[in-house]
Amino acid sequence: MEKIKIEPNDAFLYPMPMTIIGAVLDGKANFMAAAWVSRVNFKPPMMMVALGPHHTNLGIDANGAFSINVPDAALLEKTDYCGIVSGRKVDKSKLFDVFFGSLPGAPLIGECPVCIACRLNQAVKLPVNTLYIGDVVEVYTEERFLENGKPDVQKVNPFTLTMPDNRYWSVGEKVGKAWSDGKKLKA
Amino acid sequence: MEKIKIEPNDAFLYPMPMTIIGAVLDGKANFMAAAWVSRVNFKPPMMMVALGPHHTNLGIDANGAFSINVPDAALLEKTDYCGIVSGRKVDKSKLFDVFFGSLPGAPLIGECPVCIACRLNQAVKLPVNTLYIGDVVEVYTEERFLENGKPDVQKVNPFTLTMPDNRYWSVGEKVGKAWSDGKKLKA
Repeated sequence: MEKIKIEPNDAFLYPMPMTIIGAVLDGKANFMAAAWVSRVNFKPPMMMVALGPHHTNLGIDANGAFSINVPDAALLEKTDYCGIVSGRKVDKSKLFDVFFGSLPGAPLIGECPVCIACRLNQAVKLPVNTLYIGDVVEVYTEERFLENGKPDVQKVNPFTLTMPDNRYWSVGEKVGKAWSDGKKLKA
Repeated sequence: MEKIKIEPNDAFLYPMPMTIIGAVLDGKANFMAAAWVSRVNFKPPMMMVALGPHHTNLGIDANGAFSINVPDAALLEKTDYCGIVSGRKVDKSKLFDVFFGSLPGAPLIGECPVCIACRLNQAVKLPVNTLYIGDVVEVYTEERFLENGKPDVQKVNPFTLTMPDNRYWSVGEKVGKAWSDGKKLKA
């Protein structure tokens, strides 16, 4: 077990959940791909996304709102496309069937199994990225994605990202039960 | 495609990368399980973890350092155990083969394929959780986990978490190439 040091810049997580971030710019919905995203507060529910200097940021700043949409594997190409072309140059407002909840600044994607509308709570400026923290205002899904009333990862069929190799992955097999499997180690 | 609203508190990501957060308390290493963790800045590399009011937090606050360790599937039970028992009551310092880089406040886990030592950059207080943002100081791994000089998700063999169903998942099949598969949608 010989440990070696690698570049700090190669510090990633394995794997990262893939999402599509939505915002409104000049009255139009815009979308970008993002995987540096996480739940950050228990109650009330809050989420964060850490974005580089993207066109999307202008919409979040202007409207104080954004959306986090969970695409399924069928949306892989469209998700990737959102990560390749900038809203500065390409109008992505017609790429999806867009709908809105109560926040006019948080465009939601009809094709995505889970859509989370967030009101901007605060923006933490980091050297390159901005860490946008949002209060979860509404979560939309469909009956067919639920198991016991909650979105089920196998029905949602999301995909994940690894960096810096830039590969997408499906979710694998169930390998354990959280807050349970460790009980057998209790003294 | 009939959309329904579910509880905002059921806003999670699918799936979330499972990690073990390390800190030092009273001169001893302590560890907890966490999945609300993300890279948050490109250069310099920065990571965040959003922790509830845990014993671990006291160590991060006191030493200005923490670690993010990526466990593999063989460590599932020990990882889960770290999430079940509090360092307030149980000494977890002997649970792993602990080593240190340059930060005495960031205990690293020898058994984990990837170990990230972070210097605390800032702590953002949210209603329940604290969002700890760290500068990545060192990343440790082993030759056997590398592919082209970088940690490879298939060699690392990590696992993920879904909430609120509390299940662990393996990483599945490669389903695409990021910043590439979407090119075919370019006009």
